[in-house]
Amino acid sequence: MLRAVLFILLLLLIAPPPRTAAAADTAPSGKTDRSPAPGHGDPYAMVFEGLAVVVIAASVGRWAARRLSQAPVLGELVAGILAGVILYHVGNPAIVILRHAAILSKAETTAMAENVSWEKAVHSALADSAIRGEEAEKISGVALRGNYPAYENLYRSMLLFSSLGVVLLLFMVGLESSLEGMRRVAGNSLGVASLGVIVPFALGFAATILLLPRGTDPNVPVFVGSTLCATSIGITARVFRDTGAIETGEARIVLAAAVLDDILGLIVLAVVTGVVTSGAVELPAVGWITLKAVLFLGLVILFGSFLVKRTIRYFTRIDPSQVKLLYPFALLMILAAAADAVGLASIVGAFAAGLIINDEYFGDIPAPAGGTGSVESIIAPIEGVFAPVFFVLMGMQVDPGSMADPGTLLTALALAVAAVAGKVAASLAVRKGTDRLIVGIGMVPRGEVGLIFAGIGKGIGVLDDRMFSVVVTVVLLTTLVTPPFLAWAIRRKERRERSRAI
Amino acid sequence: MLRAVLFILLLLLIAPPPRTAAAADTAPSGKTDRSPAPGHGDPYAMVFEGLAVVVIAASVGRWAARRLSQAPVLGELVAGILAGVILYHVGNPAIVILRHAAILSKAETTAMAENVSWEKAVHSALADSAIRGEEAEKISGVALRGNYPAYENLYRSMLLFSSLGVVLLLFMVGLESSLEGMRRVAGNSLGVASLGVIVPFALGFAATILLLPRGTDPNVPVFVGSTLCATSIGITARVFRDTGAIETGEARIVLAAAVLDDILGLIVLAVVTGVVTSGAVELPAVGWITLKAVLFLGLVILFGSFLVKRTIRYFTRIDPSQVKLLYPFALLMILAAAADAVGLASIVGAFAAGLIINDEYFGDIPAPAGGTGSVESIIAPIEGVFAPVFFVLMGMQVDPGSMADPGTLLTALALAVAAVAGKVAASLAVRKGTDRLIVGIGMVPRGEVGLIFAGIGKGIGVLDDRMFSVVVTVVLLTTLVTPPFLAWAIRRKERRERSRAI
Repeated sequence: MLRAVLFILLLLLIAPPPRTAAAADTAPSGKTDRSPAPGHGDPYAMVFEGLAVVVIAASVGRWAARRLSQAPVLGELVAGILAGVILYHVGNPAIVILRHAAILSKAETTAMAENVSWEKAVHSALADSAIRGEEAEKISGVALRGNYPAYENLYRSMLLFSSLGVVLLLFMVGLESSLEGMRRVAGNSLGVASLGVIVPFALGFAATILLLPRGTDPNVPVFVGSTLCATSIGITARVFRDTGAIETGEARIVLAAAVLDDILGLIVLAVVTGVVTSGAVELPAVGWITLKAVLFLGLVILFGSFLVKRTIRYFTRIDPSQVKLLYPFALLMILAAAADAVGLASIVGAFAAGLIINDEYFGDIPAPAGGTGSVESIIAPIEGVFAPVFFVLMGMQVDPGSMADPGTLLTALALAVAAVAGKVAASLAVRKGTDRLIVGIGMVPRGEVGLIFAGIGKGIGVLDDRMFSVVVTVVLLTTLVTPPFLAWAIRRKERRERSRAI
Repeated sequence: MLRAVLFILLLLLIAPPPRTAAAADTAPSGKTDRSPAPGHGDPYAMVFEGLAVVVIAASVGRWAARRLSQAPVLGELVAGILAGVILYHVGNPAIVILRHAAILSKAETTAMAENVSWEKAVHSALADSAIRGEEAEKISGVALRGNYPAYENLYRSMLLFSSLGVVLLLFMVGLESSLEGMRRVAGNSLGVASLGVIVPFALGFAATILLLPRGTDPNVPVFVGSTLCATSIGITARVFRDTGAIETGEARIVLAAAVLDDILGLIVLAVVTGVVTSGAVELPAVGWITLKAVLFLGLVILFGSFLVKRTIRYFTRIDPSQVKLLYPFALLMILAAAADAVGLASIVGAFAAGLIINDEYFGDIPAPAGGTGSVESIIAPIEGVFAPVFFVLMGMQVDPGSMADPGTLLTALALAVAAVAGKVAASLAVRKGTDRLIVGIGMVPRGEVGLIFAGIGKGIGVLDDRMFSVVVTVVLLTTLVTPPFLAWAIRRKERRERSRAI
C-alpha cells in the first residue's frame, strides 16, 4: 500500500499543476504572439501531460485491483475517483471544469447566443445553479482566469480521448463477437431488453412516488423511472473481455439486449419528453425516431458484411500496406458517427462496425510492421491507450461530496436497489441453460446513458438539483457495483461448470 | 485519375457538411438540455467523421503519390491542399476556422480578457486584420453562428490528433535511431546546424534588404532572416522512414542537426525578439533559455537510458500485460510535454523518448495481444492512424489564394531560393564520405517552426500582413519541394552505391 501512496504522490507531481498556468496562458489555439518567453508553445503539451497522468493512473488502478482480486475496470474507476478528489481539492482547473462542465457550457452558450460578456455569463450560470459560497467562487475563479481556455482545451481533449476509447472498446467487443452469434440470441435478448425497460421503469416510478412527499410533480417519477431503463454497456463489455467471457452465450445476450435497449431507450425518452413538454405523445416524431434507428441497424446487419467485403477490395488497392489498420479504423469512425446521427449511441455504431468486419475479408494481406496480422491485434494498442481514459475520466467525474447528504443518499440507495432489482428481474426472460444472474448483473450499469437522461430531465425542469443528484448517485452506484458482482457471477458459473465436468 | 476524382467526391459527401450543423448545434460540451431531438448526442461524433475523412484522404493521397512515383508524404500534403481548397470553397466551417485560427483565437482572447461580447470581439479582431469584404463575412458568418462551438471543437480535435501524430512520428524515428549513432555524428551535426543557422540568416537578411523598398524598418530583414534559420524535421523524417533510409549516416546527421537547430533557433528567437522589443540583447534571459534546453537534452541523453531501465522494472511489476505499450507511450507523452516546458519543440522530446527506449530493456515480456513484440510494432498502429493527420492538416492550412498576388509570389520565390540555398550550403560542413546533397535537402523544410517564427513576428508588429504571407509562402514552398527532391537524392545515392558495388 505504501507504494500505491507513493505513486499517487508521483501522479500529483506530474499532474498539470496550477502553477504551470502562466506558461500555458497563451496556449489554447497555438497563439504565441503574446507569449513572453520564446518557445514553440505546443498548445497540446499540457494534453500530453494529462494523457500520461491518466494512463499511469489507470495502470496503478489495475494493479491495485489485481492485488485485491477485483475487476481491473473497478481499479481504473477508483483510481479516477481518488485522483479526481485529490486534484479537485487542490483546485486543479481541469478537474473543476470537468466536474462543472454543465454550468460552464451553459455560460458559454449564454455568452455566444445572448451576446453578453464572459464574466456576466459565468455569474448568471452560477446564479441559476444551486452552487453557492466557496464552491461557486472556485468555479468562477477557474472560469475567469486568463488560462481558462488552456484548461478547457485540456478538459475537452481528455473527453475526446475518452470518447475515442469507449468506441474502440465496443469495436473490439464487436470484433470478438459474431453476427451469427448475435442472431441466435435475438429472441432471448429482445425479452431481456423489453423486461429490462418495463420492470425498472415500474420499480423506479413506484419507489419515487413512495419516497417523495405527496404533491410532487407527477412528471418526476416518470422521469426517474425512465432514467432507470437505460443500459450502459461499456463497463459490462469491459468485464466480459477482462474475464475472457466475451464469447459466452450470456455475454452475447447482454450485448444484443444493450443494443436493443438503446433503441427502446430512445423511444422511452421521446415519449416521456413529449409527455412532459407538450402533454401528449407525439406519435409521428416517436415513429420517425424509431424508424431511423431500426433502419440504421437493419441496414448494417443485412448489408454491412457484403458492403465491407466489396469496399475492402478497393481500399486494398489504394493502400495495401495499411489497409488492415486504416479500413477498420475508418469504418469504426464512420459507423460511430452515423449511429450518433440517427440518434443512437455512438458505441452502438462502433459495436456494429466490429461485428461486420471479419479477418477473412482481407484475404492474405500481411499486417503492417509485423504482428500476428489479425485486425484485433492491430487495433489493440490504440484501444489499450485510450479505453482506460474513459474509465478513469468516469471516475474523475464522481463527486463523493454529493453523497454526503443523508437524505439524498438514502433516496439514492432505495432507487439503486430498484435499479438493480429491475434489471436482474429482466433476466427472467432468458430461456433455461443460461446463467440468469450474469445476464441480470450485466444489464445493471446505467453509466453515461443514465446521466444523459438525467441531464435532459434537469434541462426541461422536471428534476430539481436534489433529484438530479439522486439520479447521478444511482447511476454511480450501479456502475461501481457491477464489476465485482459480475466478475463474481462469472467465476461462480465457471466453478459450477468445472465441478459438473468432474 | 477518374477514380481519384470519384474519391474526392466521396470525401466531400462524408465530410461534415454545414447542413449537419443544426443537429450539432448543442454538441460542444455534451450539453443535451436544449437538444430538440432526443438522442445521445456524442459531442465527438463529428470529430469521428472528420478523422475518417482525413484518414481516407491521406490514403488516397498516398495512392496518387505512388502512382506518380512521388513520396507518400507529398501525396498526403497535396490531398490536404485539395480537400482544404474544396471544403473552404463550399464554406465548411471547420476549414474556415482552421484557416483563420489566428483571428478567431484573438477574438476569443479579447472576449475573455476585455469582457466584451463575442460578436464585438469577432468584429474587432476582423477589423484589426487585413481581411475585408466577402472573406470577412465568411469568417464572421462562421464565428457568429450558433454551431460555432461544435465546429471549433472539431477544429481543435483535429489539431490535437495532428499534434499527437507528429510526436508519434518522431518517437518512431527515435526508436529506429540509436543514441550511439547520434553521438558519432555529433561533430558533423553541430557544423551543419551552425552553418544552417548562419547562412540562411545572412541570405534571408540580404535578400529582404534587396527586395523591400528603402526605408523599411530594419527589424524586418532581421526577422525574415531568422525565420529561415528554423528546421522542421517532420517532413524529412517521414521521407527517410518511407524510403528506408532512416539508419543511414545522412539521416543521423540531419536528425541530430535538427535537434541542435531547435536549440539554436530558440537562442536566435530570444535574441531577435529581445532586440526588436527592447532594443538590446537580454543576455541573462538568453542564457537561461539556452541553459534550460541544453540541460534538458543533456540530462535525457546522459541519464535517460539508465532511468528508463530502472523504471521499466517497476512498471512491469505494476502492469505486466501492457507495459510494452503503455510505458513507451507514457514516456513519449511526458518527454514531449517536458521539452515544451523548457521551450523546445515537443517533437524534440518525442525523438529523445524514442532514442532512450530500447527493446532489450523490457527483458522477455511478451507483447500484448500477439505481435512480434517490439515496441516499434506495438506503437506503429497508433502512429499509422495519427501521423497522416499531421500532414493532411498541414496541407489543409495552405491557402493557394495567398500566392495569387504576383508581387508576393515573386518575393516569396526569391526568399525560398535563399532558404534552400542556405541550408544546402550548410551541408558543406559535413565531412567527406557523406552525401552532402541529402543532408542539405533534408534541412530545407521550415514547416511549423517557421510558421511559429512568422507568427511571433506578426504578433510583435515587425511583419505586416504582406510580409507574413510572404514568409508563410516560403515555408510552404520549402515544405512542398523537399519530399520529391529528397527522395530523388536518396535514390541517386543508392544507384551510385550499387554501380560502385558492381
